[in-house]
Amino acid sequence: MREDDLPTILGGARLSERPLNIVRPTFPRLERFADRFQAALASGVVTNQGPYVREFETALAHYMSVPGVVACNNGQSALLVMLRAAGIDEGEVIVPSYTFSATPHAVRWCGATPVFADCDERTFCIDSVDVERRITPRTRAILAVDVYGIACDYAALDAIGKRHGLKVLYDSAPSFGTRVGGRPVGAFGDAQSFSFHATKAFATMEGGCVASRDEGLLRRAAELRNFGQSRGTDCDEPGINAKMTEVCALIGLEQLGSFGAAVRRRGEVAARYRRGLAKLPGIRLAEPPSIQEPVWLYFPVIIAKAEFGLDREEVFRALAAENLHVRKYFDIPCHHLTAYAGAKRESLPRAEAAAYHVVALPVYNDMTDEEADHFVRAFERIHRHAARVAQAVAKMSGAA
Amino acid sequence: MREDDLPTILGGARLSERPLNIVRPTFPRLERFADRFQAALASGVVTNQGPYVREFETALAHYMSVPGVVACNNGQSALLVMLRAAGIDEGEVIVPSYTFSATPHAVRWCGATPVFADCDERTFCIDSVDVERRITPRTRAILAVDVYGIACDYAALDAIGKRHGLKVLYDSAPSFGTRVGGRPVGAFGDAQSFSFHATKAFATMEGGCVASRDEGLLRRAAELRNFGQSRGTDCDEPGINAKMTEVCALIGLEQLGSFGAAVRRRGEVAARYRRGLAKLPGIRLAEPPSIQEPVWLYFPVIIAKAEFGLDREEVFRALAAENLHVRKYFDIPCHHLTAYAGAKRESLPRAEAAAYHVVALPVYNDMTDEEADHFVRAFERIHRHAARVAQAVAKMSGAA
Repeated sequence: MREDDLPTILGGARLSERPLNIVRPTFPRLERFADRFQAALASGVVTNQGPYVREFETALAHYMSVPGVVACNNGQSALLVMLRAAGIDEGEVIVPSYTFSATPHAVRWCGATPVFADCDERTFCIDSVDVERRITPRTRAILAVDVYGIACDYAALDAIGKRHGLKVLYDSAPSFGTRVGGRPVGAFGDAQSFSFHATKAFATMEGGCVASRDEGLLRRAAELRNFGQSRGTDCDEPGINAKMTEVCALIGLEQLGSFGAAVRRRGEVAARYRRGLAKLPGIRLAEPPSIQEPVWLYFPVIIAKAEFGLDREEVFRALAAENLHVRKYFDIPCHHLTAYAGAKRESLPRAEAAAYHVVALPVYNDMTDEEADHFVRAFERIHRHAARVAQAVAKMSGAA
Repeated sequence: MREDDLPTILGGARLSERPLNIVRPTFPRLERFADRFQAALASGVVTNQGPYVREFETALAHYMSVPGVVACNNGQSALLVMLRAAGIDEGEVIVPSYTFSATPHAVRWCGATPVFADCDERTFCIDSVDVERRITPRTRAILAVDVYGIACDYAALDAIGKRHGLKVLYDSAPSFGTRVGGRPVGAFGDAQSFSFHATKAFATMEGGCVASRDEGLLRRAAELRNFGQSRGTDCDEPGINAKMTEVCALIGLEQLGSFGAAVRRRGEVAARYRRGLAKLPGIRLAEPPSIQEPVWLYFPVIIAKAEFGLDREEVFRALAAENLHVRKYFDIPCHHLTAYAGAKRESLPRAEAAAYHVVALPVYNDMTDEEADHFVRAFERIHRHAARVAQAVAKMSGAA
């Protein structure tokens, strides 16, 4: 065994000199849009559906093949606007537990109660069988999430919605750029909401949008984004301020130009991770259906200590020592959040297995093969030395 | 009578060649902060409490003499965060009817019911006597508004809150920069929320903040701004994404440097309007207490047709012909909005008098004396020719 094969935590050289963080956002250089931004500042038209936001909305609608989109100031606002535009203001909404807390929070802000469903083992997305089981007379909608950018089972969920007369909405915060059957997501279900947060593959700093084939829903969403104003200053219902600024739209317009290449690169990185990690014992990877090309917000890896030799916490610590920073995502599952302690406590075994055993690996728009390989090599070598790595972590924890 | 004294609507020359719109935002030139913005884009740290947002928060707290502020992505988000940070999630909240619809909307999004109170004739702000009359066992808070940047009666409202054990919150969206007793607003009541929207005297494109002397409330507000995350990813309650971007904070930092001069100029413009308009019959102006120096978001003028000779709509149309664009603000009063039709319909005579008879004149950070005088002269000459102006407007309406 070569000395340089030793994990850093056991004294080996770090695999990466430079810290590889969980995200590495890529933004256009300011000079690419400085003139237009300066023109906006000089004119004073910097928000309120200015020309760049309108141009960006047109470009997004074209990209997703929908009649229109409603750009928003962030993904959470887009989610609130989408839910209310779909008429959700009471009753129950079925959501996955294995998602970011923003999903159930949005349901609560709209005045409805989130009902948590378990996830599918292969995609980590909501399990459609469990969704149908949780439908009651109080159910108003299904709000599924494209976890990690993997599209949930749109066909099955749409069919359930139709069968039960429920709205089917997609919190697609992570999945802008994902393709299903060759089509970019955006036109599925009653509506889809997206996030363009800095951590996303497609980023406008902060931003998001609602996309839909339903022009009535889009009109209502556009009103809700602007305080609910529907006829002059009159409001049919209470809206919010979810307006995107011109500068975010300018960045979005620039990003669209290079996004195709970014999506391809992310797919290559995920494939490289898969080839490298699939052969290791005690490692389980997401298995999206072959019809999909996910944008891979992150690359999730579920660790079974019995076979891998280390648990999630030990892997996290050992990788950090290598300068490789993964994320325990989503730890905590939503049905275990303090905010939802009042909800009926029941076991969602697959959501819990994922939430408490996953590490999410970074996927960058500009990740190099070498960078991806560092993660693969790190998994290999900490597995090979698993017993000693576990001891080293325990010692660190004891010392801390 | 000189021909050039004729109102434009009767064939006279326009008072202003250039349209004077209801707002004329002033932003720093991009070159003043381009290097720092480019550095943020290059580093990828463009949101999530980056260094510029933290620096801006420190500067704002210093400006308002409060222990801290929570910067937000807009004023409406700041209002939602403030209400929830004060524990509002049910019951009744007393609000003015004479305000922008964002105020009652925020109460509804928080799960509470807005109860509308009438306004004071001199300040257009909520009438504290009417507030006290509307307190019931279900009342949770008073949410007063600094309409037009005129501070509401903090002393009276604080005393009512104390007497009845209610939170007293200020929707100070319009009033950043207003001084009461020489102190900038921000430290009054349990908390105050501000808007830095492009239309405001102090503008960051979109933006806002919550200010308070209560550090516990500020901590909770900071969590609510970031999805409610309180301990790692766990959430005690559902939050939203109300995060300000770095570029908005950079603009805010630039604006703070010139804001003192802007506030002075706005005060001079208001004084000029007052001197010019107070002598006209049928014109009523706001009369803030002498202890105040309001920032004057707009300058409200209430028109009594019996004495002035023209009603609000006629004034609006005649001024537009002069290239002078005023605003019917707040038409509609909130208790007449369709969204609140379910609320008990009762007459709020002073709010209705204001909402249906006011025109708001623009006040710019860089308004010239000459520009302000155009508005004064326009009022003078449309009043002098009131009967013929009314006929001309009627003819235009008939033709339309």
